[in-house]
Amino acid sequence: MVVKSELKLIKNLQQKKYRNEKGLFVMEGKKAVEELLESGFEVFKLYSMDQKLRGSWASQVQAISMKELKQVSSLKNPNGVLGVFYKKSIPSLDMDGWTLVLDDVQDPGNLGTIIRLCDWFGIENIICSKETVDCYNPKVLQATMGSIVRVNIFYMDLAEFLKSAEVPVFGTFMEGENIHKTKLPEKGILIMGNEGNGISEPIRSLCNHEISIPQFGKKTTESLNVATATAIFLNEIKRRG
Amino acid sequence: MVVKSELKLIKNLQQKKYRNEKGLFVMEGKKAVEELLESGFEVFKLYSMDQKLRGSWASQVQAISMKELKQVSSLKNPNGVLGVFYKKSIPSLDMDGWTLVLDDVQDPGNLGTIIRLCDWFGIENIICSKETVDCYNPKVLQATMGSIVRVNIFYMDLAEFLKSAEVPVFGTFMEGENIHKTKLPEKGILIMGNEGNGISEPIRSLCNHEISIPQFGKKTTESLNVATATAIFLNEIKRRG
Repeated sequence: MVVKSELKLIKNLQQKKYRNEKGLFVMEGKKAVEELLESGFEVFKLYSMDQKLRGSWASQVQAISMKELKQVSSLKNPNGVLGVFYKKSIPSLDMDGWTLVLDDVQDPGNLGTIIRLCDWFGIENIICSKETVDCYNPKVLQATMGSIVRVNIFYMDLAEFLKSAEVPVFGTFMEGENIHKTKLPEKGILIMGNEGNGISEPIRSLCNHEISIPQFGKKTTESLNVATATAIFLNEIKRRG
Repeated sequence: MVVKSELKLIKNLQQKKYRNEKGLFVMEGKKAVEELLESGFEVFKLYSMDQKLRGSWASQVQAISMKELKQVSSLKNPNGVLGVFYKKSIPSLDMDGWTLVLDDVQDPGNLGTIIRLCDWFGIENIICSKETVDCYNPKVLQATMGSIVRVNIFYMDLAEFLKSAEVPVFGTFMEGENIHKTKLPEKGILIMGNEGNGISEPIRSLCNHEISIPQFGKKTTESLNVATATAIFLNEIKRRG
């Protein structure tokens, strides 16, 4: 049995406010929890219904019932393992290679997919506007598939960051230069915008280059989803390397 | 007020079995419904709480209450407009250019995103295995953002289809040839596999080429999401055109 105060804490950690206040976050699922453990995330508490965790963590696990899990889980169908972790301490920002900047990405699934893409393509740092969805949001964590352990995510004032940048800044727009024909430097910043509105005007004015993915089908007013567009831009950056 | 039998029909159309039996499907949202109307999808019934549809369709709209909508909608927060449409009649398959083949893609969001990508990149035909999620599933339709009107989607026995194919068949695998260095023909077939298991063995044996997206980060066992991988492969095919 889990005491009420702990259940309340886990439930509260679904909210960004509490995650920031406590410096904690929740991960669900055996595989994802083990990946965090192995990558050195510091444990606050571990809970499991009946599954054993690998190695020496098994002894730290507290039993939890399905009824209790259902009270606190962010999943429709909780899958039996839940860990509360301390947030990662972020190293100082090292602008080697390319850096990804997100201007108000709102959808948790999109941010999670983008973190996973950065892991795949070896992009170490993501700089998010303060309004971008929190990377410790449970839906983001589920979508990262554990990649969050290998990517550093910073939240800061984008305009300030970009003003002091010493590498070329590439913003992505519907009407930019064809990425297939754009010369790309070894180091740079790639900016992806909000799902509905794209890159905001103040940030646009700080871009040195405007680039886009050419449309091959019948022209429509639709754009690509921000996560799939990020996939294409990161692949374009890396294929020239 | 909507009569009970109609409410029941709309609710039933959430299931593939009924969609196939009736040849009908449901689309929700003013923008998406108007896009289907404009693209020539034949209307069975239109419902709206208080929003007016464009042009001559306004007169065909039947009033529906929020209570009724909530009974039949597949959305947590129904947005006031719902249309029941006849499924599109599929033209005969014309294998010009590249064709995308999906081997048991299960997630509706992934299929929707892939349809949207095909629309963007001018891929006219998607061939799905019979086990691939139904393209008229409400979650697929929401994720396509209307692109379904411009892409033809076929469900058939993949092995049979591939055996009779007259163009080279490219399967995507974790350990295939680097797509950045692969020569691609003008016409071909690209196969994407299931989210968990990739391309099945019987289909793999029908591939002429095995290709992959190189990993640039620290090597992990993770793969890319099937929709983001599709984005990268389609961009690679089109950038050489």
